[in-house]
Amino acid sequence: VTLSGLSSAMTTKGNYRHFMLKEIHEQPVVVAQTLQSYLRPVEAKVALPQMDFDLSAVERVVIVACGTASYVGMIGKYWIESLARLPVEVDVASEFRYREPVLDGKLLGVVVSQSGETADTLAALQHMQAAGVMTAGIVNVPTSSMARTVDLLLPTHAGPEIGVASTKAFTCQLAVMAALAVNLARAKGRLDGDAERELVAHLTEVPAYMNTALAAEAAIEAVAHHVSQARDVLYLGRGPEYPMALEGALKLKEISYIHAEGYASGEMKHGPIALIDDSVPLIVLAPSGPLFDKTVSNMQEARARGARVILISDAAGIAEAGEGTVATIEMPSVHPLIAPLVYAVPIQLLAYHVAVLKGTDVDQPRNLAKSVTVE
Amino acid sequence: VTLSGLSSAMTTKGNYRHFMLKEIHEQPVVVAQTLQSYLRPVEAKVALPQMDFDLSAVERVVIVACGTASYVGMIGKYWIESLARLPVEVDVASEFRYREPVLDGKLLGVVVSQSGETADTLAALQHMQAAGVMTAGIVNVPTSSMARTVDLLLPTHAGPEIGVASTKAFTCQLAVMAALAVNLARAKGRLDGDAERELVAHLTEVPAYMNTALAAEAAIEAVAHHVSQARDVLYLGRGPEYPMALEGALKLKEISYIHAEGYASGEMKHGPIALIDDSVPLIVLAPSGPLFDKTVSNMQEARARGARVILISDAAGIAEAGEGTVATIEMPSVHPLIAPLVYAVPIQLLAYHVAVLKGTDVDQPRNLAKSVTVE
Repeated sequence: VTLSGLSSAMTTKGNYRHFMLKEIHEQPVVVAQTLQSYLRPVEAKVALPQMDFDLSAVERVVIVACGTASYVGMIGKYWIESLARLPVEVDVASEFRYREPVLDGKLLGVVVSQSGETADTLAALQHMQAAGVMTAGIVNVPTSSMARTVDLLLPTHAGPEIGVASTKAFTCQLAVMAALAVNLARAKGRLDGDAERELVAHLTEVPAYMNTALAAEAAIEAVAHHVSQARDVLYLGRGPEYPMALEGALKLKEISYIHAEGYASGEMKHGPIALIDDSVPLIVLAPSGPLFDKTVSNMQEARARGARVILISDAAGIAEAGEGTVATIEMPSVHPLIAPLVYAVPIQLLAYHVAVLKGTDVDQPRNLAKSVTVE
Repeated sequence: VTLSGLSSAMTTKGNYRHFMLKEIHEQPVVVAQTLQSYLRPVEAKVALPQMDFDLSAVERVVIVACGTASYVGMIGKYWIESLARLPVEVDVASEFRYREPVLDGKLLGVVVSQSGETADTLAALQHMQAAGVMTAGIVNVPTSSMARTVDLLLPTHAGPEIGVASTKAFTCQLAVMAALAVNLARAKGRLDGDAERELVAHLTEVPAYMNTALAAEAAIEAVAHHVSQARDVLYLGRGPEYPMALEGALKLKEISYIHAEGYASGEMKHGPIALIDDSVPLIVLAPSGPLFDKTVSNMQEARARGARVILISDAAGIAEAGEGTVATIEMPSVHPLIAPLVYAVPIQLLAYHVAVLKGTDVDQPRNLAKSVTVE
């Protein structure tokens, strides 16, 4: 894969009003490009780059990152634990490096960073290497400090990301994390050929489903009018959609300055539900499936207390639980493994359109730097 | 320890305006009472109740809880990892029970619950037991379902807690978690007699230091006037004070309905700093010590962007970094192990006095139930 031709095209806004909007729309292409380096469609296999250590020996995984990239780690925990049956610990880098983490055992350390220069994550990487831990890095900038330091570089091919709020780098990181989870599962003998073939097929579908999600933009823009008036917003999700709720809230915070907060659906009644009144939009990320009814029940508790519910789900979910919401955003019906990649699109577009309505500086929000190279 | 005499005294408000205030002030007594069951001052040892399994065989710990009790789990992770060098995983119960957690290996499962009836936590406990995991429970109600289910009951002796927002149950849970961490450290051969003697001495000091913290109430009440006008509040902390920042924010949310959010200090610049302007109080929990300068540097970044900083620290910390804050709250200088127990007092009192200023129903906040016995 060479990025030279693509890179120059990616540093102009083209016909888009902001880099962030352009980068959101680039996702089907750059995610496909990233997946190409990890999927072998003919053999229906995932293949990581050549490495000189044996993934079958891994007994525990530690993922360290900051901000949006740490949510990739949280989603990776769900994926790696369910597919490879390895215990996974996720930590934000600023805490990890100072908390005397236990690093013995046959550990794989994974860092995630767009820039590859995030100071706390780089220090965490060096800390793990000093303790003799094998490390892998999901990194977008191939010439970065982290890319040069890790034992196994797992590049994302998102191209340069200009908007300060990460979008395409995030979904490319998710794509690589999914490939790593599948590869670990095979290495640990947890995945037979048929199961791997099926997961590879689902991953291959991601770009097409992202296009479907992007086609909901007009509906999402309409929903943005509900959200832009709010002072406070809550996001809810279960399973891998819990970190997506955190990411949805972070995106909204970063560019619209609305105080949004994400929660695991089941945690809402242990405190945050006290915030709920009829001025608070509650954005629920809930693909249909085994956890759907649990999340809907949490959503109805909030609705009974006046929350203005916005449900992001598929057709089956909206048919079952759309009544009484102030708005619904329909996503395609997808395999649970790839739902976070698809649901990323509406939360990004929603944050974007809310910020545009509020008139903030979308690509360069106040107080924030693109890569945080100080502690 | 018998609670019969105490219990009836604890179900009236006495001279206090609210149960919550009474329960905050009871903490030196009930924490002392709880510690008494776990500390043997003469031998300067920690001793858990009689059990029929061998803690020295434990190789990994999983702590599961909801809401405030889950922050006890997060603080337990710092303590157990640093003292016993065992990897610890913490999860909220509603996520744990549905995410196919990896439960093999020589695992100790720990649940934390005031009522012992929290539905998600009870289900998580049953899930662990079904997988053959040895379980311990830090529980306040000795007749509860969890108390009767766990292999090892680690009771808290907080007495009945009437206020919906947990205070004395929380600090009693922390006291037991600290005792468990020290006991695990000894069982794993990580703690010699002198080191244990020193930690036991520090734990023994907790009630006295809590009294000192309670004596700061007038200063805290004055600070409440700064906070009660705010729509949004951020709490910051590092290490074990990071979960305390989450708890401070939750307490304020629960009873004052202000949208407060806690962050690991080092994460603030990865997004939430975009929220900061001169209307946002930033409450920083930072005992002096090795991480103090890092936290202060994060605090100064926020201050440069207009944040109204309230610093909760000891005399040394306030002397070093108090300048330019809108208020400081002085805590006694304490050993890092016991800092969360002491710093609990000002965050509870602050939430209480803000709620009183706002005129909310402190003991029975809107939308919340004392124990959540549904999913």
